[in-house]
Amino acid sequence: MSDYRDFYQGRRVIVTGGLGFIGSNLCRRLADLQAHVLAVDSLLPDYGGNRFNLDGYENRIEVNIADVQGRAMEFLVQGQEVLFNLAGQVSHLDSMRDPFTDLEINCRSQLWILEAVRKMNPDIKIVYAGTRQVYGKPTRLPVDETHPLNPTDVNGINKISGELYHLVYHAAYGIRASSLRLTNTYGPRQLIRHNRQGFIGWFMRQIVLGEEIQIYGDGRQRRDFNHVDDVVEAFLRAGALETADGQIINLGSDSPISLLDLVKTMVRIAGGGSYSIIPFPDERKRIDIGDFYADITKARHVLGWEPLVPLEQGIDRTIRYYRRHRANYL
Amino acid sequence: MSDYRDFYQGRRVIVTGGLGFIGSNLCRRLADLQAHVLAVDSLLPDYGGNRFNLDGYENRIEVNIADVQGRAMEFLVQGQEVLFNLAGQVSHLDSMRDPFTDLEINCRSQLWILEAVRKMNPDIKIVYAGTRQVYGKPTRLPVDETHPLNPTDVNGINKISGELYHLVYHAAYGIRASSLRLTNTYGPRQLIRHNRQGFIGWFMRQIVLGEEIQIYGDGRQRRDFNHVDDVVEAFLRAGALETADGQIINLGSDSPISLLDLVKTMVRIAGGGSYSIIPFPDERKRIDIGDFYADITKARHVLGWEPLVPLEQGIDRTIRYYRRHRANYL
Repeated sequence: MSDYRDFYQGRRVIVTGGLGFIGSNLCRRLADLQAHVLAVDSLLPDYGGNRFNLDGYENRIEVNIADVQGRAMEFLVQGQEVLFNLAGQVSHLDSMRDPFTDLEINCRSQLWILEAVRKMNPDIKIVYAGTRQVYGKPTRLPVDETHPLNPTDVNGINKISGELYHLVYHAAYGIRASSLRLTNTYGPRQLIRHNRQGFIGWFMRQIVLGEEIQIYGDGRQRRDFNHVDDVVEAFLRAGALETADGQIINLGSDSPISLLDLVKTMVRIAGGGSYSIIPFPDERKRIDIGDFYADITKARHVLGWEPLVPLEQGIDRTIRYYRRHRANYL
Repeated sequence: MSDYRDFYQGRRVIVTGGLGFIGSNLCRRLADLQAHVLAVDSLLPDYGGNRFNLDGYENRIEVNIADVQGRAMEFLVQGQEVLFNLAGQVSHLDSMRDPFTDLEINCRSQLWILEAVRKMNPDIKIVYAGTRQVYGKPTRLPVDETHPLNPTDVNGINKISGELYHLVYHAAYGIRASSLRLTNTYGPRQLIRHNRQGFIGWFMRQIVLGEEIQIYGDGRQRRDFNHVDDVVEAFLRAGALETADGQIINLGSDSPISLLDLVKTMVRIAGGGSYSIIPFPDERKRIDIGDFYADITKARHVLGWEPLVPLEQGIDRTIRYYRRHRANYL
């Protein structure tokens, strides 16, 4: 397990959503491990893709702008050994306002990718970016992988489809696919221009701009957080390990924290900032999931994975990143 | 509970897939209960819609040919009090051969219907036709509603989406929706022209034509069966009862039977016929679910429902129906 990183040296790897938040961090790490990286991204406005995310790696990572819907993927997957499948629409609110677009991107696109792989490169290895959103409002905590799937919004439903397509293509066609169910991920290179891609990025923005952070509800909702470096590490392990094939695996953290405590920590580390607690807007309240933190026992066993970046250190590095590069994110 | 049938007298009811197998049987029963019935069907070739299914009811049931995808539904749902949502593509094999079409019909269409309802008639009551296929290969028997969702084919995944959209629209927008998860349904008015819509209809066809029935595997797979009259009864109850709102409820039977015994019974009742046992074709084997029978405790409690048609009697009536009307089904 300790030398899985050697696995990527000289290997051909394709990353969908490769200019996005997690995708770009993964591409950079893969390039550091001397993989041949192809980042595919549609650069749809508002979705998180940002060319600056590969700043400094322009000569080491190949970029191809393409929609993963359509037959371009049939060409792009050829000759690739690992596919990290991170293209997606991540806004829960957007999925309720425009459920059809969410379906196109999170559900239908996945069929295009899997059909391309089945036809052109069935020996490829796939790791899919799933989400804790498939569980909905937890009926028990921490949430393990057998927790019922009761999503509260259309995004959660379409992400279930995207994930299950991978498992059916694994079972029916032998395509080596696995899914990591991500919880709140934070860190450098996230879209923080608008507040529809998760609260953590939006909080970062407010901190960097010195604006007041608004916490919905009472601030006592507990959540778990992963720094993007830890998430990248999990993807690398799942991509290298045969034992991950056909598996669904939670990421997450053993140390949930209330939103109020999170914000207080951010303000302290940033050396300034303010917050207020306000009632939920209706459209957010009806899809809110309350307390959530994941059981990551399976990730430990199957991937040998452990989140290593302490929250305070991760927040500190993230705030420094956005302060340094604010022109590229704000 | 005993007089829920009065509920439908004079009520305006819309049935999607109303010319199909279960939809047409439901429309006829609703007309008998003196509801104002609007049957909506796209009459796509090979999908089960058949104008003859409403034979004798032409003056009592309004028929509108329309695709449930698109904005026609925004008009059609207006003024309706109950929507029985049975439009769908039911072939597992087709869903693997052409996953995009299955997605369009079983997943995307449901968003069109729910968006039409949300915009134009949020007070309508909906009962959705779900399927036991969402469970996949059972990990325990009988299968209750909390069994994990591990579908073996694309159809099962898209039916999960269709069902969960209803539940999310219930939770987020207060739309009164429920889902019945159907097991093998048999009876008059099923499509039996080809063998891609479930084995029971195909067996009926072979019996009526006097051709040899081919059983895949070893014939020992146990399944449960509902006569369509019982299924119609469950829909009527779910449509009338407030306690069904937001619920997912299995249909099924307490008396599973092996496929071999089923075929022997059919041959005996038909007074002739033959069968053979052959290996699974590959494309069927990889999506087969093995033994399946449902736990129907919840249907008993929530709907007061009980399957009443004995299998032998149901088979007898079905064979007689197809013999009498074979020109319309073969």
